[in-house]
Amino acid sequence: MQRTLIGALGQHTGKEVTIGAWVDVARDQGKMAFFDFRDRSGKVQGIVFGKPEVLEAAKRLRAECVVLVIGIVNKRPEKMVKVDVQNGDIELEITSIEILAEAEALPFDLDADLNLETLLDYRPLTLRRERERAIFSVQAAILQAYRNSLIGQGFTEFQAPALVGSDAEGGAEVFKVEYFDDHTANLATSPQLYKQIMTGVFERVFTIARIFRAEKSATTRHISELTQMDFEMGFIENEFDVMKVLEQIIRDTVTSVMESHADSFKTLGADTPLIPKKSFPILTLREAQKILGAAEEPDLEPEQERAICEWAKKEHGSDFIFITKFPTTKRAFYTYEAPDEAPYSRGFDLLFRGLEINSGAQRIHKYDELVQRIESRGMDPKKFSFYLQAFKYGMPPHGGCSTGLERFTMKMLDIPNVKEATLFPRDMHRIDTLLSKTDE
Amino acid sequence: MQRTLIGALGQHTGKEVTIGAWVDVARDQGKMAFFDFRDRSGKVQGIVFGKPEVLEAAKRLRAECVVLVIGIVNKRPEKMVKVDVQNGDIELEITSIEILAEAEALPFDLDADLNLETLLDYRPLTLRRERERAIFSVQAAILQAYRNSLIGQGFTEFQAPALVGSDAEGGAEVFKVEYFDDHTANLATSPQLYKQIMTGVFERVFTIARIFRAEKSATTRHISELTQMDFEMGFIENEFDVMKVLEQIIRDTVTSVMESHADSFKTLGADTPLIPKKSFPILTLREAQKILGAAEEPDLEPEQERAICEWAKKEHGSDFIFITKFPTTKRAFYTYEAPDEAPYSRGFDLLFRGLEINSGAQRIHKYDELVQRIESRGMDPKKFSFYLQAFKYGMPPHGGCSTGLERFTMKMLDIPNVKEATLFPRDMHRIDTLLSKTDE
Repeated sequence: MQRTLIGALGQHTGKEVTIGAWVDVARDQGKMAFFDFRDRSGKVQGIVFGKPEVLEAAKRLRAECVVLVIGIVNKRPEKMVKVDVQNGDIELEITSIEILAEAEALPFDLDADLNLETLLDYRPLTLRRERERAIFSVQAAILQAYRNSLIGQGFTEFQAPALVGSDAEGGAEVFKVEYFDDHTANLATSPQLYKQIMTGVFERVFTIARIFRAEKSATTRHISELTQMDFEMGFIENEFDVMKVLEQIIRDTVTSVMESHADSFKTLGADTPLIPKKSFPILTLREAQKILGAAEEPDLEPEQERAICEWAKKEHGSDFIFITKFPTTKRAFYTYEAPDEAPYSRGFDLLFRGLEINSGAQRIHKYDELVQRIESRGMDPKKFSFYLQAFKYGMPPHGGCSTGLERFTMKMLDIPNVKEATLFPRDMHRIDTLLSKTDE
Repeated sequence: MQRTLIGALGQHTGKEVTIGAWVDVARDQGKMAFFDFRDRSGKVQGIVFGKPEVLEAAKRLRAECVVLVIGIVNKRPEKMVKVDVQNGDIELEITSIEILAEAEALPFDLDADLNLETLLDYRPLTLRRERERAIFSVQAAILQAYRNSLIGQGFTEFQAPALVGSDAEGGAEVFKVEYFDDHTANLATSPQLYKQIMTGVFERVFTIARIFRAEKSATTRHISELTQMDFEMGFIENEFDVMKVLEQIIRDTVTSVMESHADSFKTLGADTPLIPKKSFPILTLREAQKILGAAEEPDLEPEQERAICEWAKKEHGSDFIFITKFPTTKRAFYTYEAPDEAPYSRGFDLLFRGLEINSGAQRIHKYDELVQRIESRGMDPKKFSFYLQAFKYGMPPHGGCSTGLERFTMKMLDIPNVKEATLFPRDMHRIDTLLSKTDE
């Protein structure tokens, strides 16, 4: 198939080309027919006139039909040129149409403001909307930029398992899997333990991991299966070394995504994230609470996260802010607490536009200390024997953190619900279709 | 911490530096002590002499201890220079040692030829061996090169879910998950259906997916959880368009990995994969069987895969060979069969050094045809209603394929068992530790 991509048509004015595309819009006007065609590279307008046999085929086309179209790329008359629109200065004079696949009549107008249930019930169709394509193009770009920044900073990628024998976080609600011979396995709630093991191997490691949370939560921030971008690094002084690397990744990612996807931000009406010239602001939990006039609590409430982000934006021109020094008891068992900093840990959160998108810490790196911590949390070190091997044989002071890809995408594009930033969101009620239907 | 990476020490001769490292080897020689230190960038030799208080600390070090070492980078006398060894022309004259973490005595010599069970029982430790670090450095490089080739060819990355409502392949043995409210979910055996849905969105898509196989297989080729590098593309003429893209990815990947990781191949004694100047050889299944003097069967046996790869190497100077035209009945339900090519499908396999590492096909793209195929396989189209939406609303002719990352790594480096090319392999008997132990 000698196919020309729609995005390249401008280089073929006056010539005959073949495009392969979806019908984006079809407008039948009696003796003429107008179309918008769409392929992976963009859109172009096509016109049929004065060709009865082509017009006949054209009249059978409706939105989402897939076609091979032959036509001549014409310059538009100057007064018809649409400025700032892709291919706004050309149109395709159609000479032949071959229908590769028919499409049913659409169940609703794709441009309408659809509610979440409809968006998800018809996901294979609604993902084709300009808005959804923008969201998931940006998500792909975030992932690639995030990884490239890590690789550029000396990190080695690894594959963390999803099937695990015990719960990494020791507490989060876990999905059970029927494994071989009546054994029960769990779905990973985090790649944390493997990330630490791998720090013993490559010193700086990262993984893009699918993780699973069996929390019965139905908020705008929760899903049952998500993608975590996790890194861990050895030979640190403290958690600020981790935060420095993370800040560089965020800067690299925002820069890269804005360069390649400014049009997607426009589609979504989203603003470029504010990044301060100086470092991201950093507050201890207590400092943040004081600024907000709030009482001392072990964590920030969602509305406090929003308020302190407003403060960071106003005072520091930053959409990002780090919160440090959370009480050790509220953080995962492997979180390090320096003797002179008790009862505060070396954990931190990164907030972005009102939401925690990343959580991290310096970890305990000494074997005895770690065993003691596990015991003090009422857990059995024997269950962690595999993980503890790494510490028996020498681990450097280390730390790391984890960014939720869906939450990061959501906040980057100012989307109200994380499910809209998840291609195929799973929750209490839905795996693609509603569960009551699926199981019938 | 003003730390200098070991790989950069050559730029600091005559100067005092601080390194952070593991003790790779410790040799106590009475009034002197010799060490090999290891960090993520490489190794260097260190020496203590004439400093009683440093020597005392040095004598406490054993393999896998983590240290901060201050020392002076000295040029070695010419006759002591080790050619072709990293830092073979320098050594570190140690002036101070700080132990960051102790290590227990090793349970075995890390350089020994360990059996598979030991390799896996002690994975957090054995992964630190030079051989294992080489394997998983190459694996990371394969993944990055594979993705970059796809992105360069216009593919958009997406996240395929691991929790699914029904089995994508309709047949493979599936792990069951206890989902919310007594619902049962499955672990994905392939991202196939989502990949096709996404072809309707972005036309060219790929995903790096964790997939799960509940097969009771204990061969050198099988694991229960693996990483698939999957792509799918629209507007193809036939399966050869897919094979062309795949061949380009393989060429890009081999080139990139050989450029960056020649040393890892040396460590493993592995040869550079043979890539022919012309296209990879392509045989139909029947042609392959005739060359081997074998009877007509619906697939190649493992020993036939090895034999036909020997043939491709000898006749075409290629470690890769495509096999096409498998009987439709033996391929997944969504595989396309052209009316004039029955009973053969448009599926293909790519063999590499005796093993299938990739399987792909042109797919059925018309709704009615797909529904009919699902029914003819004794399955219920209602169970596929979500997937079928993509076809109701127009899908281009398309196809794609899937490479197993672990198998590709295994064959790239001539490793006998796929478990050695899997960081944390899961099988019938093991999730990190042996299952009988885990569940106690």
